[in-house]
Amino acid sequence: MQALQRSLPGARAGARPVRPARRMVACTATARPIPRATNEQKLDLLKRVECFIFDCDGVIWLGDKVIDGVPETLDMLRGMGKKVFFVTNNSTKSRAGYMSKFQSLGLDVKAEEIYSSSYAAAAYLESINFNKKVYVIGETGILEELDLKGIRHLGGPGDADKRVTLKSGEYMEHDHDVGAVVVGFDRYINYYKIQYATLCIRENPGCLFIATNRDAVTHLTDAQEWAGNGSMVGAIVGSTKREPTVVGKPSDFMLKNISASLGLRPDQICMVGDRLDTDIMFGKNGGLTTSLVLSGVTTEEVLNSPDNKVIPDYVLAKLPDLLTVKEMAMVAA
Amino acid sequence: MQALQRSLPGARAGARPVRPARRMVACTATARPIPRATNEQKLDLLKRVECFIFDCDGVIWLGDKVIDGVPETLDMLRGMGKKVFFVTNNSTKSRAGYMSKFQSLGLDVKAEEIYSSSYAAAAYLESINFNKKVYVIGETGILEELDLKGIRHLGGPGDADKRVTLKSGEYMEHDHDVGAVVVGFDRYINYYKIQYATLCIRENPGCLFIATNRDAVTHLTDAQEWAGNGSMVGAIVGSTKREPTVVGKPSDFMLKNISASLGLRPDQICMVGDRLDTDIMFGKNGGLTTSLVLSGVTTEEVLNSPDNKVIPDYVLAKLPDLLTVKEMAMVAA
Repeated sequence: MQALQRSLPGARAGARPVRPARRMVACTATARPIPRATNEQKLDLLKRVECFIFDCDGVIWLGDKVIDGVPETLDMLRGMGKKVFFVTNNSTKSRAGYMSKFQSLGLDVKAEEIYSSSYAAAAYLESINFNKKVYVIGETGILEELDLKGIRHLGGPGDADKRVTLKSGEYMEHDHDVGAVVVGFDRYINYYKIQYATLCIRENPGCLFIATNRDAVTHLTDAQEWAGNGSMVGAIVGSTKREPTVVGKPSDFMLKNISASLGLRPDQICMVGDRLDTDIMFGKNGGLTTSLVLSGVTTEEVLNSPDNKVIPDYVLAKLPDLLTVKEMAMVAA
Repeated sequence: MQALQRSLPGARAGARPVRPARRMVACTATARPIPRATNEQKLDLLKRVECFIFDCDGVIWLGDKVIDGVPETLDMLRGMGKKVFFVTNNSTKSRAGYMSKFQSLGLDVKAEEIYSSSYAAAAYLESINFNKKVYVIGETGILEELDLKGIRHLGGPGDADKRVTLKSGEYMEHDHDVGAVVVGFDRYINYYKIQYATLCIRENPGCLFIATNRDAVTHLTDAQEWAGNGSMVGAIVGSTKREPTVVGKPSDFMLKNISASLGLRPDQICMVGDRLDTDIMFGKNGGLTTSLVLSGVTTEEVLNSPDNKVIPDYVLAKLPDLLTVKEMAMVAA
């Protein structure tokens, strides 16, 4: 701790931490290459950040394989008393449902450490004291999270096989007590659901339109890229001419929700991701500390390209690089 | 004819017609109320316009009933050698298929007088000498019009019952010879179609993305408003992040197509509609002469509201008001 304080003037108790990494970035914004974090910078990161938010693919795992050293890194962070969250825009599963993915990879996580966009939708409704019904375009994850918050819902998988024939005089009834439509990824999207959601938004006064995310692409199988929830949301935007409230990435609801529930300033939270234009941009827009890992889609070449304007506070080859300062960090903590 | 020439100086042979109605509008743009066309103005309209493009609902019929006098008015126009087109953004039927609607109402029209957005899609592809395959989200109307132009296609109703389960390792093949995706209204929209269209647009180099229209609402039953093709198009925009080429209203493709095929200047074509913000705006944007009829959704109060900035060249209570100058017009013709 003594050594750490000497080398990092901002680390003294009570002072708002000076942020050497950001300072470095500010001084060398146009200087390339952007260096990987030194041990001193890693210690600084671990000192002033109390909560780590991880994008998963490219950070925690690659495809179906956990990146070597990740379990030990997570153990180290938890051992230091840090909070960790695993963020996914996947809304098809609840937090509990998503745990099986982690467990199948041998990762020991708690449901509360997972922040899925299905959970974000329920947390958002809870945050505004919502007390009407929700019509759901989406899968079981959203329904399960709504149930956990005691929010009434209809739609979802139960409407998968409903058909609209548009025969002469056909009329669709809808529930006038629906006060929100939540749209998540739905492999069984159909015209019945589109019309039902449209009627609620268009005809129920004050009806909310909430999107778990608007991702163009989702990776529900490893074999190829699949059309994402941008399609389901686009369908409802197209018939209602309304823009949704997005609760998953890249909206800042999740960040504010985590920050408020933990009582932390945004800069005490670090977004760790492998994508500059989504993860790192998302963290920066929310005022978070940001760490780019080079174990996913972003190469050092892209990071250092003059075209790249998104400069993370820290750069790590991979998350387990933090283990190089494990002993010093544990002593400091 | 002599009387007409005396009263309308712009009507002399060979001169580009002066447009009294437009002149009137220019002088009195802020003067309200905007008067209904006088007999002199009706004669002027009939003299210099060679082609009439009609929106149907509110102009030709109201719901399931033809507006009194419309058949006689159409007979008069045809008798004067005018071309008439009935425009619909409905893409579910081909022009031939749409004729049954006219016939059921007792209206005698030819398939070539109907300009549906299904036809527009095929005409657009023909206009660019398209020679690859088309993947269709939509109904039989589009397929029939493509067949008439000899354009190969796949998708459409044949994909209505296809399912994507996204089971582990699932991979969707697609035809790399698809060079255009056409998206029209599709009551059997599903995720298979969304993903197929997305793959073609995303992975086939140069693949076109064509929308018959982006209407939020469609009136496929009289009982209520239904989510329109804006939903199907929105779904594909959401997963491809590409904007479509729209061939139906309010794009100007149809106007250019009609204008070119008849060898007419835009101002020799009159758009007749009951909506200021769609029909009349559409005509004005294309440089057409415009006539508003008050037999549909637009009231005189809305027309004369200071908030209304869309001023039609002519205002008629209803289309058959043209019959008041029938004898003079037939003599003049």
